[in-house]
Order: sequence, then structure tokens, then C-alpha cells
Amino acid sequence: MLSGGRLAACGVKQSLPYVRVAGESWPMPLERAYFEQLYLRISEPHVNGLAPRLLYYDPQRFAMAMELLADHVILRRGLIAGERYPTAARSVAEYTARRAFATSVFAEPFEPVNARLATFSGNHALLRITVDLIFTHPYVVNERNRWTTPQLDDVVTALRADGENSRQRPARLGYRFLTVHEALLHGDLHTGSVMVTATDTRVIDAEFAAYGPIGFDLGLFVGNLLMAYFSQPGHESKTGERSEQGEWILTQVDEFWHEFVAKFAALWSATRVGDGYPTSFVATSSESQAFALERERWFTGLFADTLGYAGAEIIRRIVGFAHNLDFESIDNPGLRSGLERRALAFARKLIVGPQNFDVMGDVLEGARDASSQP
Amino acid sequence: MLSGGRLAACGVKQSLPYVRVAGESWPMPLERAYFEQLYLRISEPHVNGLAPRLLYYDPQRFAMAMELLADHVILRRGLIAGERYPTAARSVAEYTARRAFATSVFAEPFEPVNARLATFSGNHALLRITVDLIFTHPYVVNERNRWTTPQLDDVVTALRADGENSRQRPARLGYRFLTVHEALLHGDLHTGSVMVTATDTRVIDAEFAAYGPIGFDLGLFVGNLLMAYFSQPGHESKTGERSEQGEWILTQVDEFWHEFVAKFAALWSATRVGDGYPTSFVATSSESQAFALERERWFTGLFADTLGYAGAEIIRRIVGFAHNLDFESIDNPGLRSGLERRALAFARKLIVGPQNFDVMGDVLEGARDASSQP
Repeated sequence: MLSGGRLAACGVKQSLPYVRVAGESWPMPLERAYFEQLYLRISEPHVNGLAPRLLYYDPQRFAMAMELLADHVILRRGLIAGERYPTAARSVAEYTARRAFATSVFAEPFEPVNARLATFSGNHALLRITVDLIFTHPYVVNERNRWTTPQLDDVVTALRADGENSRQRPARLGYRFLTVHEALLHGDLHTGSVMVTATDTRVIDAEFAAYGPIGFDLGLFVGNLLMAYFSQPGHESKTGERSEQGEWILTQVDEFWHEFVAKFAALWSATRVGDGYPTSFVATSSESQAFALERERWFTGLFADTLGYAGAEIIRRIVGFAHNLDFESIDNPGLRSGLERRALAFARKLIVGPQNFDVMGDVLEGARDASSQP
Repeated sequence: MLSGGRLAACGVKQSLPYVRVAGESWPMPLERAYFEQLYLRISEPHVNGLAPRLLYYDPQRFAMAMELLADHVILRRGLIAGERYPTAARSVAEYTARRAFATSVFAEPFEPVNARLATFSGNHALLRITVDLIFTHPYVVNERNRWTTPQLDDVVTALRADGENSRQRPARLGYRFLTVHEALLHGDLHTGSVMVTATDTRVIDAEFAAYGPIGFDLGLFVGNLLMAYFSQPGHESKTGERSEQGEWILTQVDEFWHEFVAKFAALWSATRVGDGYPTSFVATSSESQAFALERERWFTGLFADTLGYAGAEIIRRIVGFAHNLDFESIDNPGLRSGLERRALAFARKLIVGPQNFDVMGDVLEGARDASSQP
């Protein structure tokens, strides 16, 4: 019962003692609800209404009551249905920029940042899923892996034999994920973690929350938009029907990246009390110019991280344990595997050669090119 | 009383409620003894006897009883006196490589690493000293700064006016220090934290222990060896008397770096259970070659970190709060400031242009060159 005696509609989320998509054979500690509600509490003041409000958390039942989003749909399902949500990508970018910035040493002295880092570094069960399912299993033989077989057997064999010596790149990305703690991440920012209407966007399902490299969140969202793009022809009732929808999705990749950079740069430029790049160092216009260049350098590194993590996300969603409806909902395995093969080929380029993409426009061009391959 | 009823000599270290060199006006929480004894417990199994053994910790008194090192002297004092310790630099390198590796995700799954990261991220008081005294105060006006005045006033003014727009480099190094958590660091690895005899070396005084970038420890030690080098002429009773000693110190910088790389690379190449660069990715000789290149790339990044942190350490020891006896024990301010000026000029090169040094030999050549300037 909320204050004033009025009963408001709300959504309730309770942790299960196992991984939902795997069933009871894969136990999962209930404590992940603790990390999710804490993430919601920490991020809510900063994200400008772009997440559902947390109304109540019951630590005994590991259950949360949240604002009900009755009119919203999952962004992934909307994209599969051929719908467009003109503000979704920009809103996810704004959400990600504000939350990442607010929880970093850019915004705050290191002491409160370290206190949160300490807490979230204990989200072991969910971090273990990320480390195994994204950064390890797809590149070795593991019973949890699956793929469209036999059509993709050759790609999977090549990936695991590592004939092209590219396994060191996912290893590098995994090492960065575990050692670079720039901000509190959502940790699972795919298009299934975003609920939308034509005018509103909310980010949900933050049970993977942990400190990590900011590019990890960005890469997951970009990777999932790219999978939405590559899978579009699989949802056509006649050839070419989804061409414009595919092009529109690519524009959303671009909007997402540029909106993130714009929002994050604006926060960085403001006077702050954070220990990261202290504003006391920037007193003159010449210093402002020098630090603007330094910011550019930082965004260049973030861009490389983003592309790498996008590639890793695409690979693990096609040859690893957890697949996406974008491809899974395409019944014809010949059609599906052809689209998956193109996505995998492009993902490999993102992982192995992020330096070949100077700006996001190059990535879109590369995706178009990969998508038109036989 | 130790086991068997025999009383062994031991050293006792008890925390003071203030910063020793500053006096009671700068309070400091006693808990730092907790972090130091925990660091000793964690590192002892890995460091091959290169630290004093912890015999007892009294959490009520914040006091430690440690193995007595009655025959050892502080390395810094020995170098000032013109002594040589042929194994010291290599031993510090071995100690640093073994301890860093053992506490990283190279050696272990991330869960125990994250548990230690969580604990040591609470070493706030000592981390605050590092953030303020190394990465912030030397580059702004702060009452704690001091320098040989008036001789160095022009250098200090230039540093704080940042006429050459180089303040973004220390800012970048500080950001990396706070966000990159590769291993449990000693955190204050200068030549005053090393006790030596002709044949034995022990690393002491780890109250600054925290997770951070591995190059931070390496940079502090390299920076302090370089200060020992630049200060040698200040300890001569006749001109040129310390030239050979200076050259010998430079060879120790080289030995330190190469021994660290050799030890760390050997540990990395062995079969491990760590989540960082998993050994399951390296099954064939072609994969071994690819991962050897990736290791090289990692060491190249470590080298840049090492030079940057070495430069930051030199700058803060000459124009910041805490100075070194290497220079401080030179009574003549004209002589002292001349040597400090050369060290500062070289430190700036290390910070601003680490990319101009391909190998450690280039650094030694640069130090010789800077030392011969008027």
C-alpha cells in the first residue's frame, strides 16, 4: 500500500534460484536481486526518468516492486516486427552516459566510487556468466555452445581452431572487462533490456550490474542493433520489404554513439568534484583546448572498446549459449544461417580490426557491405 | 613467545594516528596497519622470501611484529653513500612480478581477485595521499607543495601555468591509477621501501597497498632509481667521483625492467586457472606465437605506464610535499637545484613523450643526456 491509501499498479520481479532460460539444472544465487535493486537506487537520481522507478524491495523474498510499464514493449520484439521507435537509441545513449558518468571518478571523489566498486565486485554469479558465456566458451569447445547446424559448422570450427590467430582479441577484451573499472555498468544492455513506446524509453533488467569499462555497455547495445540489422531479411514476407527498416536501424547505431559522446562530453566539460581529470587542471582557454584533445583521445579508446565488445556480443549470441530472437525467430535454418554467417563475418572484423574503423559511419558502411555478401 | 619456547628477535611496527613526516597536524587513520598486514599475509606465499615475515598482528593496537632485519640498510641510504647492491634491483623486480602476477586474474579466477579488490579499495586514507600528492597537488597551487626556492621558481611556475599544455598527461595517469585494477600493488615502491645487504633484499612498508595498474609500482621504483642517478654529483667530494656509481645505477634500471618482464612472462606462459588470457585459448604452436605477440603488446603498454609513473614520481618528489633524501641531503641549494632541474626536465619527457622511448636503453640514454645539460 503506497502512501495516501491509494493502490497503484506495479510490476513485481522476483529472482528464481536458477537461470530462467536454462532451467533448474543451472542454479543461480538469489542475491542478484540485491545487486539489481541497488543499481536502480544508485542510478535513479541520474537517469532522467529513463528507467522504471523502484517502489519497494523485499530482501527476504529477493523481490522488487517496480513502476508498471503496461504500455511498453520490448525494443527487440518491436524491431523484429518492423516497428520504429525514433527516440529509443538516443534515450538509451542518454541513460548510459548519465549513469556511467555519475558513478565514475569523473563525477565524484574516488572514495564513494570505490565503496560501490567494492559492493558490486561481489556480484560473482552474474559476472561469471559474462566471463564464461561472452569471453570464453564461444572460443573453445563447450557443451553449452550451440549454433545453426550443420550450416555454420565450418565457421564454428574455424573459430575454435583459431586458424587466423584472432583469439587473442577476445582474450584482451575479457581482460579489460575484468580489470578496467570506469563506471557502474548495466552489464546486459541489449535490445531485450529496453522497453519502449513511440515516445518513451526505459532500461530494465540490471541484474548484471558491476563496475567495468564503459565501452562494454555501449558495445552490447551496438552489437544488438547490428544483429537487428543483419536479421531483417529473415523477417520479410517479400524480398526487400525490410530494406528501409534495416537502413533505419543503422542510423540508430550512429545516433546512439553520437548522443552518448555528446552527453558524456558535456558532463565532463562541466565543473566537477571528481578526482578523474580534475577541473582544477583546466583554468585557461589554452588548457581547455588541450583537455578537449585529451577527451577526444579518450573517446577514441572508448570507440575501439565499443566495437570490440559489439563484435564479441554478436559472436556469442550466434555460436554460444544464449541466442537472440532476432535470429532465433527465423524458422528456415538455411535463411537464418545465411544471415548469421554475414553477422559473424562482420563481428570478426570488429574484433580483429577495430583500428580499421575511424568513425561510426565506417562501421555502418562495413555492415552494409557484409550484409550484401552471398 | 614463538613455538618451542625460544624467543626470537623481531621488529615491531605500530601505526601512529598522524602522518609521520608531517606531524600531528595531519591525522591519519590507524586502519592502514590492517591493510599492510593483510598485504603481507597475501603476498608472503608468492614472493620467494623477498619480504620480512609477518610474525604477529595485534588488531587492537594496530601493531605488527615482523622478522628483524638487523643487518639490512635502506637501499636509498646505501645509494646515497655510494654503495652498490648487485642483486637489489633484480630482487625487487622478482618480488614485484611474483606478487603482481599472483594477485591478478592471470593467476586466479576473478572471484578471489574481486574479493581482495573489494577489501583494498577501502584503503581510502592512503589512496587519498597518492591521488593528492602524486597526481594533483604538484600541478596546482597548494600549501603542501615545496621546492628549492628561489632557484626552481621558474620551473614550478611553468608547471602550474601549464604553458606547454602537458597537464593532461598526469591527469591521464591519475585516471588510470584509479580505474585500472590489474593487481595488488605495494603502492609506495621507492628505494626507501627496500632493505638490503650485499646479498639479500627485502621489500617493506606496504601500507599504501591497493589494486591498481601494475606499471605504477614499476614506475615508482624506476623513478626513484633515476633520482638516485641524477643526484649522484651532489654527493661527490671531488668532481667525477660518482660518475661510475651513476652509470651503475642506470644499469640497475635496465636490470629491474628486464628481470620483471622475464619473470612475469614466464608465469604468464605457464598453465594457469586464471580468467585473464585463459590458457585454454592456447593449444597449438601457432596460437602460442600469436599469444606471444599479444604479450609483447601488453608489455609495451606496461612500459609506457612505467615511464609515465616514473616521471610523475620524480616531479612530485621535487616540487610536491614529500621529498627524497637523494636530493634533500645535498646541503648546497645551488648544487641541489641544478640537479633537481635536470631530473625535472627528464621527468617531463617521460610524462609527455613516453612514445619516444622504444626500449629501456633509450631511457638510460635520455637520462645521461639530461644529466649532462648545464
